[in-house]
Amino acid sequence: MASRARKFDDTWCVVEERFRQKSSLAAESIFTMANGYMGVRGFMEEGGDFPSEAGTYMSGVFDNYDKHYVDLVNVPNFLFTRISVGGEVVNLTSGRISCYRRVLDMRNATLRRQFRFVDSTGRATELAFERFLSMDDVHTAVQRLVVRPINHSSKIEIVAGIDGTVTNIRQFDNPLIRDIILDDHLDEVKKGAFGRNGGYLSVVTKHTAIEIAQAFSVEAGFGHSSRLIKRKRFVARRLAWEAERGGEYCLTKYVSVFSSRDRGVKSPVDRALKHLSVASGRGYEEVLRRHTSAWAGIWEDCDIVIKGSASDQQAVRFNIYHLVCGNSRDDDRASIGPRLLTHTRYKGCAFWDVEIFMLPFFIYTDPMAARSLLMYRYHLLGAARKRASEGHLDGAQYPWMSANDGSEQCQAWAYADCEIHITADIAYGVERYFLATGDEDFMVRYGAEMLVETARYWATRSHYSEEKRGYVIPVVKGPDEYCGVTSNNAFTNMMAANNLRAAAKAVEFVREKDAPGFRRLCRKIRLRDDEAATWRKIAGKMYVNRDSGGELIIQDDNFLDTTPWDVKGLMSDGRPAADKLPYSMLHRIRIIKQADVILLMYLLNERFTREEKFAAWKFYLPLTVHDSSLSYNTHAIVALELGFHKLAYDFFRKTARLDLDIKIGNTDKGVHAASLGGLWQTVVNGFAGMRIRKGLLSFDPHLPKAWRSLVFHVRFRGRKLRVDVKRSGTNVVLVEGDGPVKVRVRGNKVTVKPGSGAAIR
Amino acid sequence: MASRARKFDDTWCVVEERFRQKSSLAAESIFTMANGYMGVRGFMEEGGDFPSEAGTYMSGVFDNYDKHYVDLVNVPNFLFTRISVGGEVVNLTSGRISCYRRVLDMRNATLRRQFRFVDSTGRATELAFERFLSMDDVHTAVQRLVVRPINHSSKIEIVAGIDGTVTNIRQFDNPLIRDIILDDHLDEVKKGAFGRNGGYLSVVTKHTAIEIAQAFSVEAGFGHSSRLIKRKRFVARRLAWEAERGGEYCLTKYVSVFSSRDRGVKSPVDRALKHLSVASGRGYEEVLRRHTSAWAGIWEDCDIVIKGSASDQQAVRFNIYHLVCGNSRDDDRASIGPRLLTHTRYKGCAFWDVEIFMLPFFIYTDPMAARSLLMYRYHLLGAARKRASEGHLDGAQYPWMSANDGSEQCQAWAYADCEIHITADIAYGVERYFLATGDEDFMVRYGAEMLVETARYWATRSHYSEEKRGYVIPVVKGPDEYCGVTSNNAFTNMMAANNLRAAAKAVEFVREKDAPGFRRLCRKIRLRDDEAATWRKIAGKMYVNRDSGGELIIQDDNFLDTTPWDVKGLMSDGRPAADKLPYSMLHRIRIIKQADVILLMYLLNERFTREEKFAAWKFYLPLTVHDSSLSYNTHAIVALELGFHKLAYDFFRKTARLDLDIKIGNTDKGVHAASLGGLWQTVVNGFAGMRIRKGLLSFDPHLPKAWRSLVFHVRFRGRKLRVDVKRSGTNVVLVEGDGPVKVRVRGNKVTVKPGSGAAIR
Repeated sequence: MASRARKFDDTWCVVEERFRQKSSLAAESIFTMANGYMGVRGFMEEGGDFPSEAGTYMSGVFDNYDKHYVDLVNVPNFLFTRISVGGEVVNLTSGRISCYRRVLDMRNATLRRQFRFVDSTGRATELAFERFLSMDDVHTAVQRLVVRPINHSSKIEIVAGIDGTVTNIRQFDNPLIRDIILDDHLDEVKKGAFGRNGGYLSVVTKHTAIEIAQAFSVEAGFGHSSRLIKRKRFVARRLAWEAERGGEYCLTKYVSVFSSRDRGVKSPVDRALKHLSVASGRGYEEVLRRHTSAWAGIWEDCDIVIKGSASDQQAVRFNIYHLVCGNSRDDDRASIGPRLLTHTRYKGCAFWDVEIFMLPFFIYTDPMAARSLLMYRYHLLGAARKRASEGHLDGAQYPWMSANDGSEQCQAWAYADCEIHITADIAYGVERYFLATGDEDFMVRYGAEMLVETARYWATRSHYSEEKRGYVIPVVKGPDEYCGVTSNNAFTNMMAANNLRAAAKAVEFVREKDAPGFRRLCRKIRLRDDEAATWRKIAGKMYVNRDSGGELIIQDDNFLDTTPWDVKGLMSDGRPAADKLPYSMLHRIRIIKQADVILLMYLLNERFTREEKFAAWKFYLPLTVHDSSLSYNTHAIVALELGFHKLAYDFFRKTARLDLDIKIGNTDKGVHAASLGGLWQTVVNGFAGMRIRKGLLSFDPHLPKAWRSLVFHVRFRGRKLRVDVKRSGTNVVLVEGDGPVKVRVRGNKVTVKPGSGAAIR
Repeated sequence: MASRARKFDDTWCVVEERFRQKSSLAAESIFTMANGYMGVRGFMEEGGDFPSEAGTYMSGVFDNYDKHYVDLVNVPNFLFTRISVGGEVVNLTSGRISCYRRVLDMRNATLRRQFRFVDSTGRATELAFERFLSMDDVHTAVQRLVVRPINHSSKIEIVAGIDGTVTNIRQFDNPLIRDIILDDHLDEVKKGAFGRNGGYLSVVTKHTAIEIAQAFSVEAGFGHSSRLIKRKRFVARRLAWEAERGGEYCLTKYVSVFSSRDRGVKSPVDRALKHLSVASGRGYEEVLRRHTSAWAGIWEDCDIVIKGSASDQQAVRFNIYHLVCGNSRDDDRASIGPRLLTHTRYKGCAFWDVEIFMLPFFIYTDPMAARSLLMYRYHLLGAARKRASEGHLDGAQYPWMSANDGSEQCQAWAYADCEIHITADIAYGVERYFLATGDEDFMVRYGAEMLVETARYWATRSHYSEEKRGYVIPVVKGPDEYCGVTSNNAFTNMMAANNLRAAAKAVEFVREKDAPGFRRLCRKIRLRDDEAATWRKIAGKMYVNRDSGGELIIQDDNFLDTTPWDVKGLMSDGRPAADKLPYSMLHRIRIIKQADVILLMYLLNERFTREEKFAAWKFYLPLTVHDSSLSYNTHAIVALELGFHKLAYDFFRKTARLDLDIKIGNTDKGVHAASLGGLWQTVVNGFAGMRIRKGLLSFDPHLPKAWRSLVFHVRFRGRKLRVDVKRSGTNVVLVEGDGPVKVRVRGNKVTVKPGSGAAIR
């Protein structure tokens, strides 16, 4: 969008030079501010008559809308603002607007907006807005408004406060009833005022009984009157003054937010009120400085620097920005929803997206954040055990959609009960986290237990088939969700086998490393001596459907019965197949929604020969319609491995700016988290060719023609490495951490020592 | 229930000697009165404090509860009655009750009820109720109430009228939300009074705009006062009089019902008012006489006389009674719901139950009723064409659940989109109707078109698989609904092949029989010369999964991947598996809900060798849990064919009294229509062994030990035959129709001539 107009002159910013009502909802998603703890969509705080969802969300704050199902709650809007100048309402649709500009500065996560407003009588006023959610102190938000009467002196009134009358728009998958039901999740607990311009509102979620308190105080360094406004679930101050032509009036609103979910918080109201004085006491400059400094630290770890394409550079930063914003790094009872903190779509639930698409970014840039995401799953192991036992199965079965308590939040059986690969995906996350971090404490105390319980699930969910001479897994749905429900999806079967092997290895590791830890584990989950052997046996005999030649892995047992279809014709108009054909058809025609076997070949990279990868690529690519934000990234990575460089870059470009350029119709319902994470993998695992091969971090870079260089950092087993890819060669430098580390660059083993680099041409 | 208490002393009645609140809803279903046009559940018209659904339904009267889905409407309750004696309310829970008795007389479809009521002051009153819905004139209902004060003289008040404030209880399949939402489908059009004790109410359905008018008039041959009561959607008369000890006070209420759906009815109110005077003019005795005479005619055609077991005799009559009651014989725009006119469960929609389980009863006892049921499908061919074309398929695809307009009324894709055998089942009904009736007019004008359009559907829904060397049909669900979604369900594939063959035959038939008719058909549906050959080719090469030996037909491509399970253990407590295990499990364990391959072998009887039938029986029976009212009947018929006579009778007994003895938990939601039809087939096609073999009607009877004889009538190609099965031999007599007819009895071909019989020992 915006960036086209700016010709990419600044790779740190997203700039919107014109406000478009048509894309206002998508822009709200793009311009979301968040700090992991909470997020606010980029809505216009002063209101206006255009599509808007003034959404404010907090990680982990869910509430039931019926007995079994929850939604991510839209919490009170602490940016609520109404403006009038000389008695006329000021917003983007109430007068003539010029000099509009909205800038997301990703370097320090601030949103600034300005416009000139001319009312019906010709009075011109300039307004400038700013907001940020502190990354230094996640309970603090700051909002700023500067008003400049250009050609008039008038009375200005600003209502600034907290609007708790917000509701949730229930997110159905059925388009017939989507967006129709409004759910009201909040009851007022208390509200009040303090000081000259302060106020607070505390609400509680109706079913989960989470109290959320917000306090605000407005500072205005000029004479004004102030009146308190209190309504049901609403508290604000009306500031009024006689403004003079040419004057500049700056209001700063400090907000502090706490909830009863916060560790150690008994009274959210008390904490919010107390905390507010800290922020306001520090003052705007200092709060911003600390916030900026926190973001500087983040970028030092996770920025990717691309020379040669400002467009790609900006896109990659945009992706990283939202990944960081949306993750509740310090809260291991919350995970990341498919739209992060930018929208409630999919009810904010964690899917496999977290472990397969997003987790690698955190593993390699912020391992503690990755651990926190895995701990979220660990805490919900009890619910997963319960689910498995309800299905008469051993171990633990994770839900397809997971919110606050680990109960299944998906209401469609074909996904909830059949897309069971989620359990193996989570185990994969545990395995890969450990492989990259070597976090033994995690493995001994938590990881091994997760791997064992998930392996037990697979050991009972599969069974030996005499006909197929292998272990089979019936009634599943693989990543290609356009398939109906099938048996022996290769992805599911092989990821399950990987889960079983990883569990056997983990048991061995804990037994050898930590004898007391092992005894604890055995006692806690009644681990028997013979279990690991059983898992290895099942993994070794897991059935995978292959064609008669043996090289082509068949996606699932029913795949070849589907009707051949004109896939190119279907894709020609750019609209997803599901918008054009009923599901009853999608299920029975030979098209693939997104990488399935191809994704498997990326994830379990070392388990396949190059011939198998080629055979799959040749067979499946022409059938794949890429109707998911998860597809192109995976294809780009595998394309690079197979040497299809140009194609890979094309695929990269297709998703790099997916949300930023509003290429996909549903950015109005938030940015696509899995795609953000997938893009990071496309750059690092794709263009830099990073893999772990036989325990060594290895790189096999290939720069796109458009790029001159690619620089990024990865953390690996306690060390931080700087990877510098140029046409002239690749340089790996140890920038943090002790001791030499061996890496492989283009197949050559090199040792990276402190302060030194390992350059391979 | 009741019948146990009565020791089956009357095989024409169902008697309840004690009112049980616990089973009051089920009893309401059992005691339903209906005449095909309308039905009323057997609720207590005077009210009372116990579970009750005062349901009144009319065939074909549906209304939307959202944009896409409809429900069978609960129309105004014209039996509404309230009674007070000496100021005290009289009903079954407001005083002491004795001498209770409720009798359904199936011979003339009347419901009589009596009890003695003693109030708190010791006043005893006897009450007797009677109701029937005329079968002679389906717009007429009669209700009678006789009150006898035994030991007191008191003022008696009776409120009698029409209650239009009724609502629908929405029938969800999800138990979590079942029975919670009340839908109000009716708006008042007008109401009023006439004569001394008359009143009328007219309402209209909110979306489908069907006007329903009911008029009533109460006759009381004794002095009384009468007051009109009018409220919103409610009109009644309050009759009051000073009753004397020992007196007998009889009130007769005539009701007439019309709707704007009725052919030729412009103003339902005018028609109802005019019509009412006809009924009341005839008087109670005459209206009852005509009704009784109509039922006598029905029983002459469709009664089955069993000597030796009063219990079986009563059960069989009960089944036939409800089948006749629930079918809107003269309205070919309506079909039969799974609970007939006894409840709105499954929203009153037509399923495959109609063609596969109920249609044979009508084909052989009342061919015009069968034709009407098929015409219902013919009229909805347009909607089926639309559905097929939405799925990019040729021809016509019938919905899994069909109500008023042929749109899909099932909301779950695994059924709506996958249980596609419904289309072949309807074609099977057409084929079998024609085979039995020889109705050439129907075939030329309607049947051939249906067969062609459904065949075209299959020709595109299947496709040739090089791997399987046959035509495959992916993404389906067979009759065994405990399977998930699968491919190449043998039932679906072979019924589709049958559909294709039947279409080819029909085209040939019409071409030869009726040249102008054939030209009309070709023009109308653009029939091409080469189509029939294509259908025959596909049918001939339809893939059916078989074990390596070749004799065992495998239910579907995923069946052998399911996990073996302890089926006996699962069945041991008598509760259905779905109440004990989640569907995610049912889908992946090796259990079968109901006859699937076994049903196929009954329906396409001649297509299988005896060895194939035995192999299937041996393999599938131990896996089948019979969790559907459709399963035992089919198994009984096939058991008889295979010579398992005792087992067959056991199976027969399991379903014969399914509803009557409230053996199944959900009789509260209506009697099970498919089971009723299945029972008729068990007797006629099972115990009498009736088949059509090479065009000849054939019998291969086997009387259960408990039976001395079995007598029934069947209509076949314009003739009516009486079949008399005794231990000493089987006698077939031509009782109606011209010309001799050949039948086969125990394999011997015999000619049945007018007035003669064909007896085979």
